[in-house]
Amino acid sequence: MTRHSLSLLALAMLAVTAHADEGMWMPKQLPQIAKPLKAGGLAMDPAKLKELTDFPMGAVVSLGGCTASFVSPQGLTVTNHHCAYGSIQYNSKPDRDLLKNGFYAQTLADELPAAPGSRILVTVDMKDVSADILNAKTLALSGKARTDAIEATEKSLVAACEADKGHRCNVYSFFGGLQFQLIKQLEIRDVRLVHAPATGVGLFGGDADNWVWPRHTGDYSFYRAYVGPDGKPADYSKDNKPYLPKHHLKMASSPLNDSDFVMVAGYPGRTNRHRLPTEVDFAFGWQQPTQTRVMGEAIDLIKAETAGRREGEIKMAAKMQGLQNYFKNLQGQQQSYDGSDILARKSAEFGKLKAWVNADAKRKERYGADIAATESLIAERQAITRAELLMGFMAPALLNSAHTLYEGALERAKPDAERKTGFQDRDATRQRAAQQTLERRYDEQTDKRLVAHFLAQYLAQPANTLNTAWLNALGLKAGQDEASIRAQIDKLYAGSKLSDTATRLGWLDKDAAAFKASDDAFIKLAVALNDDYEKRENRDKELAGKLQKAYAGAQQAMIDYHASRGEAVYPDANSTLRISFGKVQGRTPGSDGSNWTPFTTLRGIVAKHRGPDEAGGEFNAPAEQLAAIKARNFGKYYVKSLDSVPVNFLSTLDTTGGNSGSPVLNKNAELVGLLFDGTLDAVISDWDFNPKMVRSICLDARYMLWQMSTVDKTTRLLDEMGVK
Amino acid sequence: MTRHSLSLLALAMLAVTAHADEGMWMPKQLPQIAKPLKAGGLAMDPAKLKELTDFPMGAVVSLGGCTASFVSPQGLTVTNHHCAYGSIQYNSKPDRDLLKNGFYAQTLADELPAAPGSRILVTVDMKDVSADILNAKTLALSGKARTDAIEATEKSLVAACEADKGHRCNVYSFFGGLQFQLIKQLEIRDVRLVHAPATGVGLFGGDADNWVWPRHTGDYSFYRAYVGPDGKPADYSKDNKPYLPKHHLKMASSPLNDSDFVMVAGYPGRTNRHRLPTEVDFAFGWQQPTQTRVMGEAIDLIKAETAGRREGEIKMAAKMQGLQNYFKNLQGQQQSYDGSDILARKSAEFGKLKAWVNADAKRKERYGADIAATESLIAERQAITRAELLMGFMAPALLNSAHTLYEGALERAKPDAERKTGFQDRDATRQRAAQQTLERRYDEQTDKRLVAHFLAQYLAQPANTLNTAWLNALGLKAGQDEASIRAQIDKLYAGSKLSDTATRLGWLDKDAAAFKASDDAFIKLAVALNDDYEKRENRDKELAGKLQKAYAGAQQAMIDYHASRGEAVYPDANSTLRISFGKVQGRTPGSDGSNWTPFTTLRGIVAKHRGPDEAGGEFNAPAEQLAAIKARNFGKYYVKSLDSVPVNFLSTLDTTGGNSGSPVLNKNAELVGLLFDGTLDAVISDWDFNPKMVRSICLDARYMLWQMSTVDKTTRLLDEMGVK
Repeated sequence: MTRHSLSLLALAMLAVTAHADEGMWMPKQLPQIAKPLKAGGLAMDPAKLKELTDFPMGAVVSLGGCTASFVSPQGLTVTNHHCAYGSIQYNSKPDRDLLKNGFYAQTLADELPAAPGSRILVTVDMKDVSADILNAKTLALSGKARTDAIEATEKSLVAACEADKGHRCNVYSFFGGLQFQLIKQLEIRDVRLVHAPATGVGLFGGDADNWVWPRHTGDYSFYRAYVGPDGKPADYSKDNKPYLPKHHLKMASSPLNDSDFVMVAGYPGRTNRHRLPTEVDFAFGWQQPTQTRVMGEAIDLIKAETAGRREGEIKMAAKMQGLQNYFKNLQGQQQSYDGSDILARKSAEFGKLKAWVNADAKRKERYGADIAATESLIAERQAITRAELLMGFMAPALLNSAHTLYEGALERAKPDAERKTGFQDRDATRQRAAQQTLERRYDEQTDKRLVAHFLAQYLAQPANTLNTAWLNALGLKAGQDEASIRAQIDKLYAGSKLSDTATRLGWLDKDAAAFKASDDAFIKLAVALNDDYEKRENRDKELAGKLQKAYAGAQQAMIDYHASRGEAVYPDANSTLRISFGKVQGRTPGSDGSNWTPFTTLRGIVAKHRGPDEAGGEFNAPAEQLAAIKARNFGKYYVKSLDSVPVNFLSTLDTTGGNSGSPVLNKNAELVGLLFDGTLDAVISDWDFNPKMVRSICLDARYMLWQMSTVDKTTRLLDEMGVK
Repeated sequence: MTRHSLSLLALAMLAVTAHADEGMWMPKQLPQIAKPLKAGGLAMDPAKLKELTDFPMGAVVSLGGCTASFVSPQGLTVTNHHCAYGSIQYNSKPDRDLLKNGFYAQTLADELPAAPGSRILVTVDMKDVSADILNAKTLALSGKARTDAIEATEKSLVAACEADKGHRCNVYSFFGGLQFQLIKQLEIRDVRLVHAPATGVGLFGGDADNWVWPRHTGDYSFYRAYVGPDGKPADYSKDNKPYLPKHHLKMASSPLNDSDFVMVAGYPGRTNRHRLPTEVDFAFGWQQPTQTRVMGEAIDLIKAETAGRREGEIKMAAKMQGLQNYFKNLQGQQQSYDGSDILARKSAEFGKLKAWVNADAKRKERYGADIAATESLIAERQAITRAELLMGFMAPALLNSAHTLYEGALERAKPDAERKTGFQDRDATRQRAAQQTLERRYDEQTDKRLVAHFLAQYLAQPANTLNTAWLNALGLKAGQDEASIRAQIDKLYAGSKLSDTATRLGWLDKDAAAFKASDDAFIKLAVALNDDYEKRENRDKELAGKLQKAYAGAQQAMIDYHASRGEAVYPDANSTLRISFGKVQGRTPGSDGSNWTPFTTLRGIVAKHRGPDEAGGEFNAPAEQLAAIKARNFGKYYVKSLDSVPVNFLSTLDTTGGNSGSPVLNKNAELVGLLFDGTLDAVISDWDFNPKMVRSICLDARYMLWQMSTVDKTTRLLDEMGVK
């Protein structure tokens, strides 16, 4: 479950390649690593991997937060079950529980619309726009002016790029704002759910096995990309046709074995491998432990409030899954960090960098001030985080909704190019989808409980650290207890009609005056709080402008320092397309008391199976599957050395959140599996890469095909994928 | 948790030693295995192990269902946490939660009485009494008369043996009633709880890790044996003094390593390694799957009825733990059995035995009839089990109590020697303790729910299979649903005062007339049902008599058959003192996707720790322990090759339920650990031993001593054990 995008801090950084298997490479860097790729076993020309619109990269797509790939000429797209979870949940109702029972569309016509806002994004171009963004005029600015100038250039580049209809363009920052790339993606807006196995397969092991090896999760699901009759991206319509991708992946024609070369192409979200020591210290000394505690409380509250209410449980399922996943990830990071020498090493490395800078007058002049400024600006940002972390947990969902709606009304009054990022015409569909989706994800009872709980926690902090605008607008006082807060917010919720979807969507078209005249409780609150929102946003932009300047300088120092030592660097992950390569490999030591072998098998499913009532139902393999295993109906997916069908495998691939669903390819770029997780004792690799410990957990494609052919009988899809 | 006694079917059988590590040997058999013992690494004279009252066997004691050992000259006794669980629970209250927090008696005076009925039993003699039991007169009898004759001889042997005050004697059957041993044990009746670690240590991993490797459970607790001022066993009294055993075990003076020789002495409960094919087929084809289903339902109901009521939860904790343990064991057995060739192999082996018998006229005459009779008598017994299995789950606890009380009154009217086993004067204390203990283990709300649920299930069976005496006495009808049953039993419970302990204990001294005159609902019901109880008991005795005759003959055939092939045999486990030997060893393969290394370490505790709110609180290591690990306060328990302190280890020792708490000894008979579990994928070894798969899980004594010295600071005990 690990590998879908975790929303972490935003700045990307550089990393030094110290090990053969380390590195999430930009496609354009592939010539740099052609040698190790060939040495590792790649049987094709590495230069082919550089071409975004050629095979195989043309078949690798983003879902925004997850990765997927085309596996048929008709736009059939495979990703992880946990990546399609929101769409499966969106289509589930108490009497039609797709989460529990799985889903298979017998015909094209049975394919279901994915959750609102679902997209399949095909990267068609990446262009270095650093010189455009950091032009002379912008470089002369500081603070908010600099942030605004960067944003303005970004918007104009994006607008020009998106003049090519059906495409979505974005500017991504690399090396902490030192470099920028304009990335152009075909944006397929009609995405449909084609097939998902039952939870007992797709989520087998549940939270207990999340981030764990040995693993036996059938973490796959299928979408299909649809386009208008003209072949161009279009909104959902019955008249739409399957998209015909230029390239799709083919299933492996030879069996995958221990030590075989594998590579993965995907959209890793965020790594922090070379953060400054002060950032590492803050993350592990305060921020992540605090987030962990708060999320743990949120998980318990959601459980308590939805217990015995399957409808509430379904509505909170996606949020719950995200929370549990991130919670376990942070716990794992902290466990690896505590007692480690990570901070000492990072400090020593940074010390060396500074010594290198200070050893030369020119270098000192060039980088010295930026490095010093970076450290003090980061301290400023950390103070804000400390004061405001709880605010992210205590806002009612409908207040957030009202705030966004009001902000939209204010922005719509401006010319498109002058609006804030996220509120331009290009964002209208996503804005609507977000408001729409709330219908299936909002549970008032749970929302109230979370809000009251975290408001009480917030108000228990020293009075002089509290946001007075918030206190005044909500009529709250420092030190108020949960019960009295509860009484007040009960009135708030009762005074709003925003939980009604039609009402909520209606506000998308109203102007600011209508908001100001409204007596809806959450709309009124959003209007009252708007000055405060703006004030904090401007404060953050001021800081971001200063930080971009300083951080980019510090990053350049680091790149130059490593270059002076002949060391190659790759940028930290930033949700853009990357390639990692490595091999199938177990691990010694595995978890304490064991060594890990590279493959698990169907035997492990039988051994772990506990039925629906034991272990929270997390190990509940379908009866049909168990029967097929018992009968040894392995067919052509049988592997003699395992005396079974492989289920999951370990690889040395360097991946992180966002890589979920990524196709794992063999030396001929044929599909051998889907990446879906890492192990808890190595999630610290987001900060500190240890090749002895890091293993990515992959679904073996043979398990997926076995389950589809032998148990779920999804013949139509197998035929389409060319599986005989 | 595995290895405390599971109450299985009663007949013991023989097993053939096919592997060096297979075998639970009777002490008297040790000369037979002196060679492999020496070859395995034993550094002392194997003949020493034969002497029950010498070192080291004199230090090994039974708790009845678990094993323990003396570890100080003052009667300090170490066993598993899960073996002392009942006593820890007995002394726990919501405001003094010893289960959760652990317990340490700072002084002798602080040591707490163990749960009523707790005993420390020191085996002082074993004597073959086969010729006494199976005398000419008895051998001429059949059916109930034979059963009665065997029982009468047993009682007279026991009475003569127990003339030596302070001792408990019992006759045990070996080889399915072919041989009998009279075993004499010093019975220490004043047992006190000295120390138990917190649940987060002693039960770390809880049900999730039960039967699982890698394992990190600190499964140890301490009792102390007390005797009267005269040094003889006595009931609890403040004037009692610690018992001074002639022998006690000393802690190992050299570190335990991979591949080292180890042996274990203890009281394994029951194995079924050479059952007849028909018994194997019935056990895995009907009985165990049915028990598993029923126990699974009971577990869910207990959870539901005690949720949010810590008092109810504490009262049901011991029963719950037993149910979960057995449930998981049976599930594991079934998983190994399903799809295996066990039945085919057993059938082939039995076929060979029959062929050997039939190949010779004399053998045919000697064994033929017994073998045939055994098979048909077993079929008879299986029919009874099918009809009555649910009856064991549907009887109210207080009805069972009333029945035992009434039976006691009826038996007390007879001369002592003529009373039923279990109702002689020698049993009075245990009878009283059983009635007393109910106080801490009876939760009416849960009891009612279980009774109503299983009565409804029983009544849903075909009407002609139901026990009409029961239906009439309870006023129930075939097919009645749970709600209407519930209404009826509500009245039943309301009409009884037996839940009051003083009232219940008062009935221990009343005569049958008083019972017949009582208007207590459960007493009345017990009286009304007595004829049916008697009828079924006599039916079972009739069958047992026939079966003893036939089964003993079939067993003799099997022993002779193996002797003809030069194969040694050892009897199946039957709760008597045995010795197993083997070595420290990991396993390849381990669980699917891993290999197992022989030791776990403190690192694994940190990795598994989830805190009190996650994973049901089952992985909740104490903060003090985690801090000590983080600070690497390993002291002299540090093992360089592990870079930590060893926590648990795997060994090839052949053990089963009842072995829990057994001392694991090194080649010099020094204490290196405590046996406490096996692995789920090998619990089938109770029926079918596979040396590649069978591993016993042991607590490493170094972990216990580290936790006691570094975290729990139990200095008094460490001093007493001679640990410096």
